[in-house]
Amino acid sequence: MKFATMPDGTKDGRLFIVSRDLTRIEPAKGAHTMQELMERWDEVEIQLEMEYEAVNNGLGGGFEPAAALAPLPRAWQWLDGSAFDSHGDLMDKVFGMEDKFKPPFPYMYQGVSSKFYGPTQDVKFPTEDDFIDFEGEFGIITDEVPLGTSATDARKHIRLIVQINDWSLRRIAPLEMKSGFGWVMAKPPCAMAPIAVTPDELGDAWRDARVDLPLNVWWNGEKFGAANGYAMSVGFDQLVAHAAYSRDLVAGTVIGSGTVSNETYREVGSSCIAERRGIEMIDEGEARTAFMRFGDTVKMEVFDADGQSVFGAIDQKVVAA
Amino acid sequence: MKFATMPDGTKDGRLFIVSRDLTRIEPAKGAHTMQELMERWDEVEIQLEMEYEAVNNGLGGGFEPAAALAPLPRAWQWLDGSAFDSHGDLMDKVFGMEDKFKPPFPYMYQGVSSKFYGPTQDVKFPTEDDFIDFEGEFGIITDEVPLGTSATDARKHIRLIVQINDWSLRRIAPLEMKSGFGWVMAKPPCAMAPIAVTPDELGDAWRDARVDLPLNVWWNGEKFGAANGYAMSVGFDQLVAHAAYSRDLVAGTVIGSGTVSNETYREVGSSCIAERRGIEMIDEGEARTAFMRFGDTVKMEVFDADGQSVFGAIDQKVVAA
Repeated sequence: MKFATMPDGTKDGRLFIVSRDLTRIEPAKGAHTMQELMERWDEVEIQLEMEYEAVNNGLGGGFEPAAALAPLPRAWQWLDGSAFDSHGDLMDKVFGMEDKFKPPFPYMYQGVSSKFYGPTQDVKFPTEDDFIDFEGEFGIITDEVPLGTSATDARKHIRLIVQINDWSLRRIAPLEMKSGFGWVMAKPPCAMAPIAVTPDELGDAWRDARVDLPLNVWWNGEKFGAANGYAMSVGFDQLVAHAAYSRDLVAGTVIGSGTVSNETYREVGSSCIAERRGIEMIDEGEARTAFMRFGDTVKMEVFDADGQSVFGAIDQKVVAA
Repeated sequence: MKFATMPDGTKDGRLFIVSRDLTRIEPAKGAHTMQELMERWDEVEIQLEMEYEAVNNGLGGGFEPAAALAPLPRAWQWLDGSAFDSHGDLMDKVFGMEDKFKPPFPYMYQGVSSKFYGPTQDVKFPTEDDFIDFEGEFGIITDEVPLGTSATDARKHIRLIVQINDWSLRRIAPLEMKSGFGWVMAKPPCAMAPIAVTPDELGDAWRDARVDLPLNVWWNGEKFGAANGYAMSVGFDQLVAHAAYSRDLVAGTVIGSGTVSNETYREVGSSCIAERRGIEMIDEGEARTAFMRFGDTVKMEVFDADGQSVFGAIDQKVVAA
């Protein structure tokens, strides 16, 4: 199934079912909001499957993905991993932290979840001097996950897959990291692509609890990267289990992969500017690519083997707060 | 004004006004839940002031603080500081991190906010081997705070003061800290004392956006500490401004002081076990006090100059998940 949340004047918006080809939508009957769906998934799944079938057979009105909110416009919990080692290794090099401690568990921090930007909302920042950067990621949304859930059991709690732009301020990020407390200032709200999909919609591209598809990124209209989501050193199942080690995960918990990155980044490109700068530092002795300026845009979109957009496009402009 | 949230079968509970002497409560008329109050404070303040007056004059039923939920049973955002330098310095010593980077901004991380334990709820942990510890803190709850709010302007957004037990797993905490990502596993949900109070209720004890009162802590019935809340190196106003640097703070954001600690900890005692262990390491060459076992209890309560309980008592038992 595919879902989107459309504006209705409330903070949570109205949940819609989206046709497989992303052309039509119909208000979801089983749940009014995405949060409600995540809380009542088992109760309403069959009804929604029937509705999805009907939408695929012609029911519903036209769909404007650019008008959508984030599929989950606000969440009780957003936990972001950093599961692509080629990204982490480069970042350590860029920040001079190569001999940093490597923990015996997945990287993860908790970020702001009271707001996820919609796919085409402008993103505001206090100043260009904070080194504004995008980060293309995949993410998942869980139903309620009990404390102590294993990675194997975690798979059935991964109800939806989403595509995320995790905005970052690179001037502040390494300082907050060195403080040991993780990020607050360096991590404003993220954005989500308009459509959330169930794992079965990805077919063979949902493999080992990872998304085996390239994440295409354009910066000011120029292609910037197309790294594949499969290269995670731990799958989303392990990230869920890690997050649930000492807490119950509330229904509607969003967990991110961290910036999608491949070891072949010189060929496939990157999902954030900091990574390209890291490559430049290694190859050319210094970073040449500057961070974003007010007015800059970033677009991110994922296509399946048939060329069909999977999550719709994130297409955002950076503006002054 | 004083507020409590009583169970009504919903996740958010029902907001009540509490009499100044904590003997009577009456359902709040202006707002059904604490979250709603934080979103509509300006609209409903006068009505609630009138109701508070009536409750102080005899309106309302009896109040059982031990039956209350947390004043805000779940929040969209929980940001915890570490503003007591004598605690931070000791922790660095205990964890061998004395030459750790000191950031040019307040320490702060984002923690789980989808649940705050009520004051007498049992707290579950996966194992005793994770070094279970309590942390006595003060906290504040804000209304909506715009991105870029100054510390001076932040004061008027501090609507309520609360008392918090920030549960911690000390075996994991230093490892997560060294990872640079902050804490996820080491920080299960916190608990709140039953009563939230407006700053004016503290009188002179609300000073420089700090709580100038001792936080009394008992572990298994034995007095453990009574450190004063005034010793924060930055006030709550500065913590709010820090949190709002690059994000709007959603109404109902909870911000913590970090573990209350005084430089005179040998006399006043501590608000967490790790600190006592740190003192033992310095004074006696090794930590002798063990962390908590299943079945252990911790009680925390704050009294004003007249001996009146300010927030009611946190009184929790540690149990196996």
